[in-house]
Amino acid sequence: MVQEEIRRRNASTLLRHVHLDGPLCRADLAARMGLNRSTIRALTTELARVGLVEEESPSDTGRAGRPSLLVRPASDRIYVLAFDVAVDRLVAARVGLGGVILDRREAVRPRAGPDLPQVVEVLARFGRQLHRAAPPSATCVGVGASYCGMIRPGDGMVRFGPDLGWVDQAFGAELGRRLGLGLPVLVGNEAHLGAQAEHLRGAGVGLQNLIYLHGDVGVGGGIIVGGRLLGGDGGYGCEVGHMVVNPYDGRACGCGSYGCLEAEVGERALLDAAGRPAELFGRDAIRAVTDDADRGDPAAREALRHVGDWLGIGVANLINLFNPGMVVFGGMLCDLYPGAADQVRARIARNVLPVAREHVKLRIAALGDDATLTGAAELAFTPLLTNPLTTPT
Amino acid sequence: MVQEEIRRRNASTLLRHVHLDGPLCRADLAARMGLNRSTIRALTTELARVGLVEEESPSDTGRAGRPSLLVRPASDRIYVLAFDVAVDRLVAARVGLGGVILDRREAVRPRAGPDLPQVVEVLARFGRQLHRAAPPSATCVGVGASYCGMIRPGDGMVRFGPDLGWVDQAFGAELGRRLGLGLPVLVGNEAHLGAQAEHLRGAGVGLQNLIYLHGDVGVGGGIIVGGRLLGGDGGYGCEVGHMVVNPYDGRACGCGSYGCLEAEVGERALLDAAGRPAELFGRDAIRAVTDDADRGDPAAREALRHVGDWLGIGVANLINLFNPGMVVFGGMLCDLYPGAADQVRARIARNVLPVAREHVKLRIAALGDDATLTGAAELAFTPLLTNPLTTPT
Repeated sequence: MVQEEIRRRNASTLLRHVHLDGPLCRADLAARMGLNRSTIRALTTELARVGLVEEESPSDTGRAGRPSLLVRPASDRIYVLAFDVAVDRLVAARVGLGGVILDRREAVRPRAGPDLPQVVEVLARFGRQLHRAAPPSATCVGVGASYCGMIRPGDGMVRFGPDLGWVDQAFGAELGRRLGLGLPVLVGNEAHLGAQAEHLRGAGVGLQNLIYLHGDVGVGGGIIVGGRLLGGDGGYGCEVGHMVVNPYDGRACGCGSYGCLEAEVGERALLDAAGRPAELFGRDAIRAVTDDADRGDPAAREALRHVGDWLGIGVANLINLFNPGMVVFGGMLCDLYPGAADQVRARIARNVLPVAREHVKLRIAALGDDATLTGAAELAFTPLLTNPLTTPT
Repeated sequence: MVQEEIRRRNASTLLRHVHLDGPLCRADLAARMGLNRSTIRALTTELARVGLVEEESPSDTGRAGRPSLLVRPASDRIYVLAFDVAVDRLVAARVGLGGVILDRREAVRPRAGPDLPQVVEVLARFGRQLHRAAPPSATCVGVGASYCGMIRPGDGMVRFGPDLGWVDQAFGAELGRRLGLGLPVLVGNEAHLGAQAEHLRGAGVGLQNLIYLHGDVGVGGGIIVGGRLLGGDGGYGCEVGHMVVNPYDGRACGCGSYGCLEAEVGERALLDAAGRPAELFGRDAIRAVTDDADRGDPAAREALRHVGDWLGIGVANLINLFNPGMVVFGGMLCDLYPGAADQVRARIARNVLPVAREHVKLRIAALGDDATLTGAAELAFTPLLTNPLTTPT
């Protein structure tokens, strides 16, 4: 039993290495895992037998002696379906082991209105298309979805989806039923998944403490503490968007309160500060402001500075609390941050205690708008990566 | 080697059970640890041999059959020295295994001025007195200290001690040298240690996610995430006191900025709000305000409400971020919180998303003013509890 558990853990660790870092030779795996080469050989043979990895001779090592076999993830054969319900779009993708996006479908999402059946109908149709388009030899090992709201981790229930007005909607269960693949749909909050994606494959690889801020209509957060996502008692932690930063004359927030971080730095705050009409919204409208600022338009530059100061207060508060190695800006904050960076840095200098900001880095999401989708794929791979030898493939 | 490691872990776990929960019979330990009674017998025999536990027959179980022996921590024989450098006092204690405070010394600390040699001189004198007063058979197994500032975990260096104006002072090393016991002094931030004490022995036993707020001149924080203290990259996380809550007309803060949580709810904020003269300070002055409020004095009640609203904003922000099971108020917040609770609860209702506040409890520190000292003792016991069979006793 103990031996069996050690074998499971080693297989899990080995598969995770090639899933995250791509093809690795047996010798490298042995060195990384602190195991001898015969143990590595037994593990890779077993993982190859169940179809999760492929082994091949490296083309030309340029070294004498028998070359160490290269172990690569079976990206063409093993895949997950990943979904992303974002404020402006619905995305579905087939993602191969190793994190390769093999195929994708995308639709514009209207801002107001779509209810659960409408959203699930689009996603399930995309999912079935992607599934049918996969080669006959390929196997779907999991399904994951990112949702822009508060998710109950156990069953993918949307507890609160402010932009769609969803409260206690069984999104995960319903998508699973409509897909009809016999697989559960694991659902996560978009900023939580974006944080995990940037931590595993993006700007923050190898860091122990990282803050990911995801901007769209509001601002979500995903916070990695000691290498793990901060969940809290119910999985509802990381709600950076409702940190009160402006208690006096704060803007109205979708949560019903005033002066929340997301009310001061979300999409509407920037567009209002730039004097854009109320009918405009979305990424194009945001980019019109940042493009104008890049061209030197004073009103656009001032709007970015104004919003940047509020963002800076939020970021400074978070650095004081978490002493992280990095803060990553995702979603529309990828566009907004460059023009607001001076204000953010000034706030950090003014409000963060010197020892807590000694080494912190500020970065744009390396995965860009695919951070949340990538996080959903990683969530979908979790069961396989945890138990690679007993998951049906 | 694997067997040896399993034995170490089991001995560590068993000793931790009796250290935290007091005398337990072998049968209970077997049930808690999921081990059979012969393994428990071997472990307790070994721990008794090195003098860490004592075994005895329970006085009268009232049950038939051979009673299960009671295993108790050797509190009279095994102790640590714990120190507390708080804003108003210097405390030293001899604390027995099991967490019993066996003996203590205490001195008033002047607010301004004492430098490192002066503070260390008092503490080292107390420490040597306590050591000499211990029975000849007793052994000191560790030394821990709580300090009201930012501490480098590795070596007990005070990176920033705002109230004493200390920057990069080798407090731990110097106290260790002056004590002359040949033991390193482990040092922690007072709010971090208070959080751990309340988590291990106070209001928050068994919780996974807990926020401890420690008020004195300022407000410190200790945050338990997933059962562990949030440290951050350098151990400087949890700085709740410098969360900006009042960016417009905030009070000046000791950090050089304005509108930090501790500037709005620290000692001076309350005393100013209550119209007390600038010469007054300290716990007695705080209690004079809360006593007046209890007697119905309108100005004192209004001062508590005013400060309570700022405290509520800070607490609401933290609940949104951490989704904790409990918030514990320590230090002078033990006195302040009851008169401010209505404001705090109102802010939580207004600013925390409903799903994140479903189950959160608000409590006064169960260990009262000994929370930080208790945390220092627990820090001192850590090496013994981790390696009970190889620590010299």
